[in-house]
Amino acid sequence: MASDEREIRRVHSTWIDAVNAGELDRLLALLAEDVVFCSPGQAPFGREAFSSHFMSAHQQMRICCTSELEEVVVVGEVAYTRSRDALSVTPRAGEKAAQFAGHRMTVYRKQPDGRWLLSRDVHTLSAVA
Amino acid sequence: MASDEREIRRVHSTWIDAVNAGELDRLLALLAEDVVFCSPGQAPFGREAFSSHFMSAHQQMRICCTSELEEVVVVGEVAYTRSRDALSVTPRAGEKAAQFAGHRMTVYRKQPDGRWLLSRDVHTLSAVA
Repeated sequence: MASDEREIRRVHSTWIDAVNAGELDRLLALLAEDVVFCSPGQAPFGREAFSSHFMSAHQQMRICCTSELEEVVVVGEVAYTRSRDALSVTPRAGEKAAQFAGHRMTVYRKQPDGRWLLSRDVHTLSAVA
Repeated sequence: MASDEREIRRVHSTWIDAVNAGELDRLLALLAEDVVFCSPGQAPFGREAFSSHFMSAHQQMRICCTSELEEVVVVGEVAYTRSRDALSVTPRAGEKAAQFAGHRMTVYRKQPDGRWLLSRDVHTLSAVA
C-alpha cells in the first residue's frame, strides 16, 4: 500500500477514535482551515460550528461511532474515501439510545508539509429502527 | 474562469436538465464506468442500479430537480463540487407531491480525452414539510 493511502487510513482511524473519546483538539488538528461538513437536514457548516456542535453533543450524550473504509482513492494531492458508518448516541439524562447508519464521503487535501487534512465531508446517516 | 471549471459547470447543468427530462442516455454518457452513488437510507449503488431506479422513478412520478452549485474545486485531473439541491416528486397516480432538500457533493474525474465524468456522488436530501 502506498504511503499516502496508509497515512489517510491512519487519519481516518484517528478521527473515529477521537470522536468516540470526545477529543476536540485531536479532531481540529485533522481539519483543513476551509473544511465544510454536510449532514442531512442541516446547512453546510465549517470548523467553528463543528467545534460547538461536537462539544454540546458530548456534554449531552455518550457517542459511539464505528466506520469501515470501503475505498481510498488518492490522485496526486487530493484523495477521496467512502466509509460505512454507524452511530449510537445515548443521552446522559438516561433516555433510550438512538442508532443511525449510512455512508460518508470525505475529501482530503495533502498539505505542503505532507500531512493529509480533512477538507470536505458529507454523510447520509439516518435513524435506524 | 478556467476551462475545466467551465466544463464541469456545463456537465452539472446538463445533468440536472436530463434528470428533469427523464433522459437516461444523456445521464449515462456523463457517468464514469465505476461511478458510486450514496443516498440516505440506501446501500451505495452503481451504474446499473442507477438506470433501473431512474426509469422506474420516472414511470411513477413527475420529477423536478433544481441544483445550485456552491463550489467547484479543480485539482489536476480530479474535481469536487458542492451543490444545494431541491427535489419535488409528484406521483403520476395523482397523490400529493413530496418535497426534498439538501446538499450534494460530487467527485468528477478527467478522462484521457478531456471529458469530465461524474465518479462519486453523495447527497443528504431529506423530506421537508
